[in-house]
Order: sequence, then structure tokens, then C-alpha cells
Amino acid sequence: MGFLTAKGVVYKPVDDVDLGPQSDEFYLRANVKAPRMAGLLVKVFAWFLESRIFGPILLYILLRNNLIHKLVSFVEVKEAPLYVPLHPFEDLKEEEVKCINSDLSPPEQVKEAMECVESAENILENSKINFRRWTIMDYARAYESKKITPRMVAERFIAAVQKSSDPALRMSYFINYNADDILTQATESTLRYQQGKPISALDGVPVAIKDEIDCLPYPTTGGTKWLHQVRPCIDDAWCVKRLRLCGAILVGKTNMHELGAGTSGINPHYGTTRNPYDTSKIAGGSSSGSAAVVSAGLCPVALGVDGGGSVRMPAALCGVVGLKPTFGRVSHSGVLPLNWTVGMVGILAGTVEDALIVYAAISGQPSHQATAPNVCFPLLKSPNCLSKIKLAKSMEWFNDCTEDIRVCCSLALAELHEHYGWETIEVTVPEIEVMRLAHYLTIGSECTAAIACHLEKLNKAELGWDARVALSVYGAFNSREYINAQRIRNRQMQFHQKIFAKADVIVTPTTGVTAYPIMDDALKTGELDYINGAALVRYQIAGNFLGLPAVTVPVGYDKSGLPIGLQFIGKPWSESMLIHVAFAMQALSECRKPEVLYDLLTKD
Amino acid sequence: MGFLTAKGVVYKPVDDVDLGPQSDEFYLRANVKAPRMAGLLVKVFAWFLESRIFGPILLYILLRNNLIHKLVSFVEVKEAPLYVPLHPFEDLKEEEVKCINSDLSPPEQVKEAMECVESAENILENSKINFRRWTIMDYARAYESKKITPRMVAERFIAAVQKSSDPALRMSYFINYNADDILTQATESTLRYQQGKPISALDGVPVAIKDEIDCLPYPTTGGTKWLHQVRPCIDDAWCVKRLRLCGAILVGKTNMHELGAGTSGINPHYGTTRNPYDTSKIAGGSSSGSAAVVSAGLCPVALGVDGGGSVRMPAALCGVVGLKPTFGRVSHSGVLPLNWTVGMVGILAGTVEDALIVYAAISGQPSHQATAPNVCFPLLKSPNCLSKIKLAKSMEWFNDCTEDIRVCCSLALAELHEHYGWETIEVTVPEIEVMRLAHYLTIGSECTAAIACHLEKLNKAELGWDARVALSVYGAFNSREYINAQRIRNRQMQFHQKIFAKADVIVTPTTGVTAYPIMDDALKTGELDYINGAALVRYQIAGNFLGLPAVTVPVGYDKSGLPIGLQFIGKPWSESMLIHVAFAMQALSECRKPEVLYDLLTKD
Repeated sequence: MGFLTAKGVVYKPVDDVDLGPQSDEFYLRANVKAPRMAGLLVKVFAWFLESRIFGPILLYILLRNNLIHKLVSFVEVKEAPLYVPLHPFEDLKEEEVKCINSDLSPPEQVKEAMECVESAENILENSKINFRRWTIMDYARAYESKKITPRMVAERFIAAVQKSSDPALRMSYFINYNADDILTQATESTLRYQQGKPISALDGVPVAIKDEIDCLPYPTTGGTKWLHQVRPCIDDAWCVKRLRLCGAILVGKTNMHELGAGTSGINPHYGTTRNPYDTSKIAGGSSSGSAAVVSAGLCPVALGVDGGGSVRMPAALCGVVGLKPTFGRVSHSGVLPLNWTVGMVGILAGTVEDALIVYAAISGQPSHQATAPNVCFPLLKSPNCLSKIKLAKSMEWFNDCTEDIRVCCSLALAELHEHYGWETIEVTVPEIEVMRLAHYLTIGSECTAAIACHLEKLNKAELGWDARVALSVYGAFNSREYINAQRIRNRQMQFHQKIFAKADVIVTPTTGVTAYPIMDDALKTGELDYINGAALVRYQIAGNFLGLPAVTVPVGYDKSGLPIGLQFIGKPWSESMLIHVAFAMQALSECRKPEVLYDLLTKD
Repeated sequence: MGFLTAKGVVYKPVDDVDLGPQSDEFYLRANVKAPRMAGLLVKVFAWFLESRIFGPILLYILLRNNLIHKLVSFVEVKEAPLYVPLHPFEDLKEEEVKCINSDLSPPEQVKEAMECVESAENILENSKINFRRWTIMDYARAYESKKITPRMVAERFIAAVQKSSDPALRMSYFINYNADDILTQATESTLRYQQGKPISALDGVPVAIKDEIDCLPYPTTGGTKWLHQVRPCIDDAWCVKRLRLCGAILVGKTNMHELGAGTSGINPHYGTTRNPYDTSKIAGGSSSGSAAVVSAGLCPVALGVDGGGSVRMPAALCGVVGLKPTFGRVSHSGVLPLNWTVGMVGILAGTVEDALIVYAAISGQPSHQATAPNVCFPLLKSPNCLSKIKLAKSMEWFNDCTEDIRVCCSLALAELHEHYGWETIEVTVPEIEVMRLAHYLTIGSECTAAIACHLEKLNKAELGWDARVALSVYGAFNSREYINAQRIRNRQMQFHQKIFAKADVIVTPTTGVTAYPIMDDALKTGELDYINGAALVRYQIAGNFLGLPAVTVPVGYDKSGLPIGLQFIGKPWSESMLIHVAFAMQALSECRKPEVLYDLLTKD
């Protein structure tokens, strides 16, 4: 890292930092100095933070205690700022991929992707999955066979969502869904199947959209009570438009953490999204509803937005696949501008193949901002045929999680080695905690710049209490801190480039904890739980701050039966490889059977 | 612009802003609310600003009074931030240019450029210039003819600099120059000519370097007493290395405004650079010494750095040519990192041809960061052969200068029309003052991030008083303001793209005032003169904030005989066209004769 002066760290030159396994780089555990707060305590804390006199003092103490001053604000760092993690395109020269022309229409792209997943099914059929959700292929086949129709699915879907909102369940999956609109789309799709002219494999497939992405006829609330009033939704977002062009049924806007400013999914306005694996536990956030509806089997796929792990964290906690593409791979047009340099549309899906199909449908940019390279899809044949992948693992970081997660994820790596001969090399990813703070400062500053002009006109009572606290901290950074954070971004980019020169993929657990309990005192006020929060985002930041693609795959359960995700972080634009790696992991689904993991855990 | 609320402006969508001559866009005059201060007043002001209690209050009032709050901090603006003005390369399909391979060595590039200026001389010989400085070609011919040698020139140069430092003159051109080093280089060059093997036309030509650019064997002070101690100069900057490879004699480090944080060139540590046209007047800044040595005829060319007009302003005030290339055209490697998104190495030269030759020598980027396109040079034939250029002029902005400047610059435009048939179309460049404030906020924030870690360890007494005031204001911005400034950058980029769809070049006076008097009370403390400062930078900002290339050409004198510059601002990467336009202007040098202008001024 460098050396610490009274003020802050003097960072070493990048080339002097040892990234090998024996590195003397100190692994700094997230040193969160803030107790859990909910109920009245959050209210008092918010009042203090918003006070003209105490606020600045309290904020100063908070930033100092949480090492932001020492690690970001007052540091000496050589690197120039890197403001936007947009990577130049590099031809990765991958084998076993199909690269498509960016002029193809979304249905044509889906067709190409379908050919890539064709042979995947047999592989999965042979693996011992303990239960299966309906996949896109299942829907497509069932519709083709005319045994069921999109209309029938839509009706059942509506009934299921209604039931999930019963007082007994209160799953709070959706902020908005419109039964009439769903049925209209389903009827049209049914007609297309009757005429033998479905548009694509996605025709008639229910897809849910996070309420941070524009999707007609709904307002885009961002999980708030007011944002849709100052920013009306006037069109589908780019990615939604493409799904609609493929014939997908857009079934409504999923619940999310207010403004994406938290990781629990506890939303005081629209209810707390509950985890389908255990309704007393959080679903994670901020794309809570999108993860939960896929986990519950209501939709095979859903869209989320990932600005600080917001797709991957709830995916892992809810036991589904979460894919965050490279920064710039999917157009941000029509996504709430809550930040500009860390967020990306992401995909939540029951299986890796379904994630690939939706990835095919939504990838691309409007032609006038063609920044992303052509899209490639992996041919999902037997993972044994995949060329050997070299995984990089940073031991202390990898192990900074609960015992269940550590054992389960290590087991998954062992299986990859055993079945495919993939090697894991030891590396050190330095300054992880520095990157987390720099990212926090960045997303907070950008969120403030994006919405402060609205907040100033707003009655504060329209905001949740935890969001008020978050926004107070978000607005507390000066321009020097913001620019220093971008210099740290440059530094980390260089570290990651060096690691990717030695390995194809960095592997980590997806989260440091599994789904934790929803406490009653948090339901109305939200809660501040920065310790669990830090454990959730521990492995997320490179995906956002450096714009790298990342995917989480369910690999098992903890002792309580809650899902555990394993994350693969790839080189820029390497989604194709990442999807193949995730597919290979998914095929080894033995470890997803709870009893297998329990055995292993109780053995030692 | 939009409409003003109690808090700040709600900006109109870009497409709703009328950029035509009849636009209802309001031209906001720089509303600087700060009296001129020097001597004790500056000290007291600095003390107040640095006080823990009064400082923040005073800064708040300053930013509010100067409309930063209303125009930047609390605004509502749709655009996403644009952090770096690096333009994608566009093939401008220019005629009459010679495009060179970027693999050429600097001497080869100079050779190509020399062929472009070959026929230029005759044109200039025919024009009625009232005096001539020695050009690069003059040096090269004299050396070739062996009438004089580089060694003789070096000796005379050293004597002249020594004389200029006499108490009678106190020109303060240089911060550092080393007679031995200059003579060593000159002796080597002399030997090369004796052997009939000069490296290039620049061999033996004296070139001065602003003390913001690394050049061995000198420290890089940035006009301070301390920066070179915390950042030693260990190598030539990229651009200096290239000049050295061409055989140029690097004659020392020119004086500059401390940290580039001012426009007068009054430096309390190294003396105030005086204007060779009138030693009681400022030379302008911050590249004060580089402009003055060229103006005085000591060097045909010098390098400066232009972060907010710092090359073009002193060039105009000292009656020389100033060229600021497109952002990214010249490597920033080895230039003091005082900011990252607005500064560029620029060229000060006695003639447009000499600017072109040095431009040829220094253009390019290290191969691993090849962001700039290949370089093209204009073939400087008769301007009559040049295809018709369409100039854009924003009337109210153009006219917001002293009467002398207005008349002189309008006359120059009339001459361009008369001799070459070039049309000037009327446009409205909107939100000029907004852009000035956003740029100020950006350069201030970046300067703070760049040097604050050093300032914290520094004894404040090592800083000049005006620099202390500037640094206090620079450090006062929050991250929201910084990001909003980048959104305004995006907005302005779009305005300029629209204007460049209608015209080739935007034309303005270079400065709103000519060189103003150096007051005795400012010599020790520096001075704060934001009104003159705002008039100097009035036409500079697009060149820096939007990364556009710009050139200033002397076009006449005011009533006191002080030089006036006319500025051409070009499309990204259009240096070739700009140089040709500047050459055409230079050829019509009638109006540079003071008596001609006086006639015109006294006639009405």
C-alpha cells in the first residue's frame, strides 16, 4: 500500500506493489465503526446529520473513523484520475465462441444465442440438481407444443403475485404491476403462437424489470415516493425495448432498496422484499425484487441494475445467477441516472443459459454511441471441452467470510479442479478496502449530483429514514476527495490488469454473509447495518469501480439452508468466457444439495 | 439557458437553445464581485480565508456572490458528466495538407513541416510588417551559411538575458537558466554544422521552456519556492525530449504565475515578467516568460502550458502567435500534474510558420498511449489558394472587450473577407459565463487534488499571498459542484458541435483587455484583480474545457501601442486548418501597423 503519515497514506508506486501470494500487502478488514441502528435511533441519527450545526461535525467524525480521511481524502498518490471505466476493446481471441454482427435485431441475436445453448440441456439433465425452475427453453417448448399458452401463464403469474402479497407472506416483490397490461401482452403473444409465428424464444416469457429502469406503462420510482413525479417515464429503456421486440411479457416493476442506497432491500414505502428461501430473511439489494421473483420461480429472468453489487448480491442471497456485464456493454439509456460511472444493467436468471439468452437480447448501444465491441456468445457444449481456465484467488480476501461460505466456495474450486483440471493460482489483490471506500465516495457523490436539485424541493418526510442518513453522507464529500477516489480507480485498474496478465478470471465468494434476518424494528424506518453491509459488498467493487464483467453462480447452502454464491470476475469484454465458466460451475451442482454441504461441514 | 429558481438555474434541453444570431439567450457579463486587492489587503484577505471559522463563511459568500451557486452548484441539468474532453478522431478530409506517419522521428517530422513552410516566405516578404524577429528559418540559413554559429548565438543570448535582468529592466524572463549548459549544447550544435550534419532546421535554435515542464538540468518549480523539492525533475518531458532530438538549444526555464493560478504573471518569488512592448505593463500569464522572450526576440519559439488560456493570453498581450493544440495532441508526460482535464502544452512563436515547425516536432504520444490521430500539416502556400473558410462570430461576446480591441479585431475580419472572400456568420455561443465558472471550479478542484497533500506539509510563508487566496478558493468546492461542472462541460460540447456543423472556425478577440499596468503594491504580495482577470480569460475557456484547438495571431495595437490578438477556435484535431487560417491572417499584417489603427480609431 505505502506508508501512513499523520494525515493519510502515501501510496507506493504500482510497480512496487507485490501482487504475488507472499506479498507483504496488509489485508485491511473493513473497519466499520457504526453500530446497527433501526427505529427511533435511525431517526435521531438522521436528525443530527441533517442539522446545520451538528451535521458537519458528525459527518467529519464518521468519515475520519471509517478511514476515509486516511485512505482517500488526505493521501499522496501518483496516479492521474481515471473517471470512467470504459475499456478499449481488445480482441480476446477466444475459442468456442460465436461472434455476432451488431446490426442484428434483438430476435436475431436471441436466435444465435439459442443455438449456443442447444446442447447445454443434456449436460444439465445429467447433473443432480435438487430442484428446477422453468427455463426460457421450457416456456418456449411448452408454448410451441400448445399445451399451455402465454395467456395461461400470465393468469397464473398474476394469481401468484397476488397470493405472495397476502398478509401471510408479504413478499413485496413488486412496486407496480398492471394485470391488464400483462394480459394484453400475453394475449398478443398467444396469438403469435397460434399463428405459428413466435418472434423469438423469449416470446411469451415473463420478464420482471427493476423499478430503476424505464418500462411503460409504469412510472419509474427508484424505490421512492417522489422520483417518478419529477422525472416521468416517457419511453421504454433501451434494454426493455429490446426485450419487448423479442416478444417477452414485461410483468411489472420489481421492488428495490430506496434509490439503490442500501443492500438489504428493506423499503419502508413498498415493503421489505423477503427471501423465497426463508421469508424471515432479507433478499438482499438493491435489485431485491428482481432476485426474489426469479428465485421464487415466477419469472425465469429479470433485469436489475448493479452500481455496487446490486445485481450480484441479491442473486447470491436468493440462490440465482447474476450477471453484470462490462461497463458500456448495455446502453444505460432509460435507466435512472443515479450515477454515471459505476452502474450497469444486469441480469438475474435461474440458469446460466437463460442469463446468456437475455444477455444476447439486451446487449448493444444505440448506433450513435457505438462504444462497445461486437458481442460474442460461448458455445455451451460440455465444460470438459472448454480450454483450461486459470483462476486467481486472493487468499485472505477470499477467506474473509463466514465459515459456511468459505467451505462451500473452496469446495466449488476443488470441484472445478477435479472435473476440468482448472488451476487456481494464488495472488494478492491489494487495497480492497481502499477501493471500497473510493467507490462509496464516488457513487455517493454522483448520486448527490444527480438528485440533489430534486431533494432540495422535497419534503424530507417523503424519504425513508435510512435513505436520509445515506443522502446526508453522500453529500458530504469535497471535490478533492472525489478526484482522489478516481486516482485510486486508476491504481486499481493497473493492479487488475497485472493480475489478468497471469490469470483468466478472479474468483471470490459473492458475499461475505448469507441472507440475514429482517428485524421488525427496521420495517418502518429502514435500518443502518454497515457491518453486514460491508460484508455483502466485500467482493463486489471491482465489477463496478473498474467496470469489469462479473457473474455469480449458486454453489451451495449454509447450515440454515440459505444459498451461497461464487463469483467470477473477468477481463473487460470477456462475458463470453465468464458465461462459459459459470456454466461449467453450474454443471457441477452436486454441492448445491444441502445435505452434501452439511456432511462436509460437520466432518471437521 | 433556462429559468432561474430561488436556488439555481433549471437548464433548458440543449436542442431547445437557439444558437442563431437572433437567439433570446441572454449574454451574461462576467459579474465579478471582488475589488482589486494588493499589499496588506491581500494578506488580510488570505488570513480570513484560511481561518477555520471565518474562512468557510467568507468562501460561501464569495461563491454565492459570484453566481457559482446559481449557475453551477444548485442547478438542474439533464446532461451526464463529461469528465475528459478527449475527442474521437474524425477524418476532417482537409485539402492542401500533408499527413505524416506517426512513426516518423521528430527530425523527420520537422523536415516534413519545413517543406510545408517553404513557399511561405515570399508571401510574408511582400506584406508590410513593421518589424521582424529572427525566425527558425533565419537561424537555419545563417548557420548553414556559416556566417554565424550556434555558439555565437548562445553567447549573445546569455548576454542579453543578463542585461534584461539589470535593475533598470528587471524583465524577469527566466526562473532558471544555466550558461554552461546552454554553451555546451551550442558547442555540440556548432560542431554538427561544421561537419555539415545538422539534425534538423531546429538544430542550434534557442527554445525556452515554461517552468511547468520538465527540462534537464533544471528543477521544475511551477513558479513556486517548494514544488521542485517534493517533486524532483528526473527526466525531460516528452515534448522537451523531442525538441532535444531535433537539436534545439534548450535555453532555460521561463517565469510563470505561481502554480499557474493567475493571469498577470506577477510572481513574488521570481519577479514580475514585464511586457517587452512596455515594461510598465504585465506580460500576461501564466506562461509569462515564454511569451516575453519570444516577443523580445530572444528565442523564435518557446513552450508554455495552457490550462485556462495560459499560452494564448500572454501571447496576445506580448504580440506573438500562441497555439494550443487539441487535448491529447501532445503528451502531457513530464508536465507538472496541476490538473488532468484542461491543460495542454502550447507553443509561443514569432510567426505562424515557426509555430507549425515546433508543432511538428512535439506532436504525438508515447506509443503505449496512442490516443491522438496522425498529424497533418497545412501546405502554407498563398492564402488565396486556400478554400473558403466559414467563420462563426457571436456578436455580444465578441464585442465584450475594449473599444480598441473591438475595432481592431473587426477590421481583421473585414480584411479576411476582402482579400479571401471568407464569410463570417453570426451565431450565439450560449452560457459563456457558466462555462467560465464551471472551468474555474474544475481547474481549482483538480489543482487542489494534485497538490493539497504537499500544501499540508508546507510552511504557508513559502507561498505567495495571491496564491494562498487562490488555493483557499480552489479547495472550497464539493463533489456535487465538481460533477455538475462536468455536466456543463457536456452541454457546452454539444453547443459547440452544433456550431461547428455550420462553421469551420469560431473567431473572437483573444482577450478583453490589452496589457494593463504593473502596480508597485503588487510586486511583493501579488495582486487580486478578478475584473481584469475575467476580461483576460473571457475568450479562452472553450479551448481548455472542451479540449478544442485554438490559435491567437497578433492583428494590431491599441492606442498605447500594446498588441492585440485575434483568436481562432477550431474543431477537434483541426490544427492544420487553424494554422492555415492563422497564416492567412498573419499575411494581412497591414493592420498591425499602429498608425493604421490610430487612423481608424480617430476617424469616428
